[in-house]
Amino acid sequence: MNGKMKAIVKHQQGFGAQLKMVDIPNINENEVLIKVKATSICGTDVHIYKWDEWSQSRVNPPYIFGHEFAGEVVKVGSKVNDIQTGDYVSAETHLVCGSCPQCLTGQYHICKNTKIIGVDTQGCFAEYVALPAKNIWKNPSELCANIASIQEPMGNAVHTVLADEVTGKIVAIIGCGPIGLMAVGVAKAAGAAQVIAFDLNDYRLHLAEKMGATTVVNSKNEHPLKIINQLTKGNGVDVVCEMSGHPIAIDQGLKMVTNGGRVTILSLPTRPVEIDITNDIVFKGVTVQGITGRKIFKTWQQVSNLLASGQVDVTPIITHELPLEEFEKGFDLMIKGECGKVILYP
Amino acid sequence: MNGKMKAIVKHQQGFGAQLKMVDIPNINENEVLIKVKATSICGTDVHIYKWDEWSQSRVNPPYIFGHEFAGEVVKVGSKVNDIQTGDYVSAETHLVCGSCPQCLTGQYHICKNTKIIGVDTQGCFAEYVALPAKNIWKNPSELCANIASIQEPMGNAVHTVLADEVTGKIVAIIGCGPIGLMAVGVAKAAGAAQVIAFDLNDYRLHLAEKMGATTVVNSKNEHPLKIINQLTKGNGVDVVCEMSGHPIAIDQGLKMVTNGGRVTILSLPTRPVEIDITNDIVFKGVTVQGITGRKIFKTWQQVSNLLASGQVDVTPIITHELPLEEFEKGFDLMIKGECGKVILYP
Amino acid sequence: MNGKMKAIVKHQQGFGAQLKMVDIPNINENEVLIKVKATSICGTDVHIYKWDEWSQSRVNPPYIFGHEFAGEVVKVGSKVNDIQTGDYVSAETHLVCGSCPQCLTGQYHICKNTKIIGVDTQGCFAEYVALPAKNIWKNPSELCANIASIQEPMGNAVHTVLADEVTGKIVAIIGCGPIGLMAVGVAKAAGAAQVIAFDLNDYRLHLAEKMGATTVVNSKNEHPLKIINQLTKGNGVDVVCEMSGHPIAIDQGLKMVTNGGRVTILSLPTRPVEIDITNDIVFKGVTVQGITGRKIFKTWQQVSNLLASGQVDVTPIITHELPLEEFEKGFDLMIKGECGKVILYP
Amino acid sequence: MNGKMKAIVKHQQGFGAQLKMVDIPNINENEVLIKVKATSICGTDVHIYKWDEWSQSRVNPPYIFGHEFAGEVVKVGSKVNDIQTGDYVSAETHLVCGSCPQCLTGQYHICKNTKIIGVDTQGCFAEYVALPAKNIWKNPSELCANIASIQEPMGNAVHTVLADEVTGKIVAIIGCGPIGLMAVGVAKAAGAAQVIAFDLNDYRLHLAEKMGATTVVNSKNEHPLKIINQLTKGNGVDVVCEMSGHPIAIDQGLKMVTNGGRVTILSLPTRPVEIDITNDIVFKGVTVQGITGRKIFKTWQQVSNLLASGQVDVTPIITHELPLEEFEKGFDLMIKGECGKVILYP
Repeated sequence: MNGKMKAIVKHQQGFGAQLKMVDIPNINENEVLIKVKATSICGTDVHIYKWDEWSQSRVNPPYIFGHEFAGEVVKVGSKVNDIQTGDYVSAETHLVCGSCPQCLTGQYHICKNTKIIGVDTQGCFAEYVALPAKNIWKNPSELCANIASIQEPMGNAVHTVLADEVTGKIVAIIGCGPIGLMAVGVAKAAGAAQVIAFDLNDYRLHLAEKMGATTVVNSKNEHPLKIINQLTKGNGVDVVCEMSGHPIAIDQGLKMVTNGGRVTILSLPTRPVEIDITNDIVFKGVTVQGITGRKIFKTWQQVSNLLASGQVDVTPIITHELPLEEFEKGFDLMIKGECGKVILYP
Repeated sequence: MNGKMKAIVKHQQGFGAQLKMVDIPNINENEVLIKVKATSICGTDVHIYKWDEWSQSRVNPPYIFGHEFAGEVVKVGSKVNDIQTGDYVSAETHLVCGSCPQCLTGQYHICKNTKIIGVDTQGCFAEYVALPAKNIWKNPSELCANIASIQEPMGNAVHTVLADEVTGKIVAIIGCGPIGLMAVGVAKAAGAAQVIAFDLNDYRLHLAEKMGATTVVNSKNEHPLKIINQLTKGNGVDVVCEMSGHPIAIDQGLKMVTNGGRVTILSLPTRPVEIDITNDIVFKGVTVQGITGRKIFKTWQQVSNLLASGQVDVTPIITHELPLEEFEKGFDLMIKGECGKVILYP
Repeated sequence: MNGKMKAIVKHQQGFGAQLKMVDIPNINENEVLIKVKATSICGTDVHIYKWDEWSQSRVNPPYIFGHEFAGEVVKVGSKVNDIQTGDYVSAETHLVCGSCPQCLTGQYHICKNTKIIGVDTQGCFAEYVALPAKNIWKNPSELCANIASIQEPMGNAVHTVLADEVTGKIVAIIGCGPIGLMAVGVAKAAGAAQVIAFDLNDYRLHLAEKMGATTVVNSKNEHPLKIINQLTKGNGVDVVCEMSGHPIAIDQGLKMVTNGGRVTILSLPTRPVEIDITNDIVFKGVTVQGITGRKIFKTWQQVSNLLASGQVDVTPIITHELPLEEFEKGFDLMIKGECGKVILYP
Repeated sequence: MNGKMKAIVKHQQGFGAQLKMVDIPNINENEVLIKVKATSICGTDVHIYKWDEWSQSRVNPPYIFGHEFAGEVVKVGSKVNDIQTGDYVSAETHLVCGSCPQCLTGQYHICKNTKIIGVDTQGCFAEYVALPAKNIWKNPSELCANIASIQEPMGNAVHTVLADEVTGKIVAIIGCGPIGLMAVGVAKAAGAAQVIAFDLNDYRLHLAEKMGATTVVNSKNEHPLKIINQLTKGNGVDVVCEMSGHPIAIDQGLKMVTNGGRVTILSLPTRPVEIDITNDIVFKGVTVQGITGRKIFKTWQQVSNLLASGQVDVTPIITHELPLEEFEKGFDLMIKGECGKVILYP
């Protein structure tokens, strides 16, 4: 393993990326080296690929990006316990400090000094990736590599949907990108009485139906609040999972939730949003929750159990599977929104 | 409606009951009169029928017993709002005082002065029943009367299972009487990764499988703790729903739960039970919850939504449907344990 | 009691109010008549007095306003149980419908059809007030009438501060009107490690100190975020109770809260507020809670216990006590902000 | 530091211990060496000293026991970050595995492979102690060493009392050993309306009064349930913290709690206890929680903040302070129950 490997390198401060041969990474005593079996493209990777404003302020090319994967451990650092060569693993992508007040109280997902694999460090769009042992999550051998690779974003969906009670409730999912689609499946599996999915893209709404949405709404064609009014006999939904980032959708989310309901936000609106706090939050006694990352490793346990039990089937979301070499096609699909998850095989 | 009606009367301080013609009840200004479409037999009714120790200390024959039903409102008291003639309804069976500290803080299900319909007052094993308007729950018109009639015990199952997180967890249901069977269905619908059902009766275990149990265990034949050890890789279950009332089963429940897990008890053991508090509760950081009744009406809302959405299908549990006149056959089946729920049609 | 009584009447669609002699109200069978011993002026009353935009759209003069009081029951409707002549009482001011989904699940404080005493119905700025029995809260005889009269706004403070954990935490109270001042006392009593109070008015900040604030900050003179940074070693506060309604203060509240903290909002900003959802809510994993009214009657029980035990002493907040006739002086003080609570004695 | 040090050595499989000169311990790369400034005697140490049944099955003499302390870091392992020589520290005494399901989900306090400092490893009844860096808690410089040394048992009290809501509630503390006494102070600081303390020992009840108990009850002289009935107008207490381990006291705790209340158990009864599950847990809807250890480090943060803020003053509990050499006197006092906490100064 002292040779070379294929990797998708964010090579420049500009659009795109390049497939290159690079050195297989070394590991330190607390790390493991993993042979990547499958890796998937996240919206964050698309931002980096397109070189948007956020990427320009955050990432430092040239480096290997990508952070969602499943693979096999091929080398283990000298101080690593509990992980063996041959283990089939994925990884939590937040590298946390362990010593801020949040880490000290077990809230690692909101560590004040979080670094992200493939954003702030070398990533997994490659044949091999070196990672700290403490970030590794072991997969059951039965789990297919493509599904194992998307556990990280599924963790976002699980963290959002299961932030509070869902069973027997009416849940709205606003925004049907891959995480929104997984949220539909999670809400359904958790016993939601209705799962109402919103998007502007019929392709994605069709996937939402496959994931178990009881109603899908194209917000371009139908007024979300009018539909909700009909579906809930005027009471509104109990839970909103906001995954679109659009100011109008956020406003609608706050207006469609019933008194005492919750609006859980995973999306990252690009600028401040005007909110009618008095009428939409205070008088209604609404709770708004910001969600980031995954509880380490509580959320991973939930994801793993939901997949292993068959309670959530994410296969409809995996719409494209390509060799690593065809990454440009994958990014193209992502940019056009004509896909669910795109898997790359190194 | 000033005429006579059929009713099953607990006629004497002893075994059995009699079908009699009695006066249709009058209602006061805060009550409604309901024509019973379907009524079901509860374990409590069997206690009264058999005239066990508890019944002897609590109920005063002659009176009409029975408390689970669905029916149509045929008369409405002068001070009743929100309920009309023709409404299709069931009823919460706990009559609460409204003025004890628990009621004042909205915890009606643990009212200190609770009376129970069909136990402390006239019940619904009859063509008509008169009930306070504030106990009425309105059913959707699509819901079949036999299913609507068993919402009350399903409320016990929902209250027990959903007392805390279930999604993605491993849940043991100990005791597969009708409420245990419904608990299996509720746990599965709420996204439990495994639902492991225990009983001594193969008939009931077969129903548990139909309700979605991932494993059924006849505790006569297999050792519960050994099975749990295998199914959970030595970790134990996350949640135990205790519905058997047997001291040995309760002890096993406390031993099979993992550190930090919960043991939710709906059953009513007939005498004090020895508990190893130090090893089974304190060192493991376990939570033991007693559950009684249904949250009024939060639990009813959950039950209604789970049924309307199809998330829980209780039809496998309704094993027998008889005319009211054949109540003796129904009680016989219940006593022998060769049934799920028995519905009586007046 | 068929005679006349003094009352402060909102007499016209415009500024001010008038002391008038009016008929002592009649009661229906579910109401009680109360002789008012003390009544206090709420900010809402000031809005009505000044005839602001909100009042113009909501209230219908002429009528008696006022809703905070303590008094003695002098007459009891024929259907009222549990309340006797001579009982010393206050009242929950939200008149709830009892039949919306929120009421049916015990969330009366967010009833969708709430009416408010003294806003939508006749109020208590008078010698007598007639109220529904179900809104009555019984006071212990030892409680002074002036203190008993301000339990309703103290309920807002308790509901806000105790919406989640406080003990051992760092709490910021933004806005030191009477409810903010009570929130300071409640946070201190609940074991907050620091209670940091913000306002623009030194008179009120001085009262905040008397109520137990560990630091008071005049946001005109010192930058709130800079102070918080110093007081929390850069970590931020755990809990923000927002009681100012100012957009800048709300923004500062969201910025001063630490990752995983909560921002509980009782204030009613007059127009939509811009919020940096991405950085201030999502990435920080913050929870924003809207709070309205009081949990019925859980919050009242908490208020009553905190006062009876001496855990909270609200006497520093009662800065002015006047005969009912001098209401104009009371409203004047309130408009100028040169007071805590103003009590009127009929 | 390659010399010798004084240490209290559990020297034999039998009663007592000996002061000896032993080697100052070496540290590995992940450990720190601490000069002990103050150490305190725990009930567990007394068990070991007396060589009871539990000790015989758990500990392996000869070794240094003791686990509560405050001290100064004098040497730091090569891989240790965030801790410097000169840091003033105490330590979490549970050594957790980091890889069981509980640890992986942040529930370190219920790790399935917990080892305890001074029980399973060398302890702190000595001039120096070597400990893993990850167990270290940094103290503020203002905190006196005697108080800093008892943060670990105070953590048990905090973990127990604050396991759920306390503010405005009626709390019973059963058993007034040092942790029970600290629980009294914590409950009072957290805003309990009443704190009712039970013990059989008047010396300890006198300390309970000093810690803020609103009522103290010697259960030898007065019937606990009768007193509770009077103090709560027949309703019962909201919260029971069980710290006695006596079967009769546990039974009384379950009977004195009101419907919907909680019984949180930290004590370790020596054998199984008979519990009337039906009447004392199920019908009352009671929650029984087992508590062990401290949340790592959430509980430490709470303890630290409660002490630094002055919300809890534990000085009345520190009744004896002795040089390390006089440990026999200290153990004697502990055995007789004629003390609060006993501090030893090396």
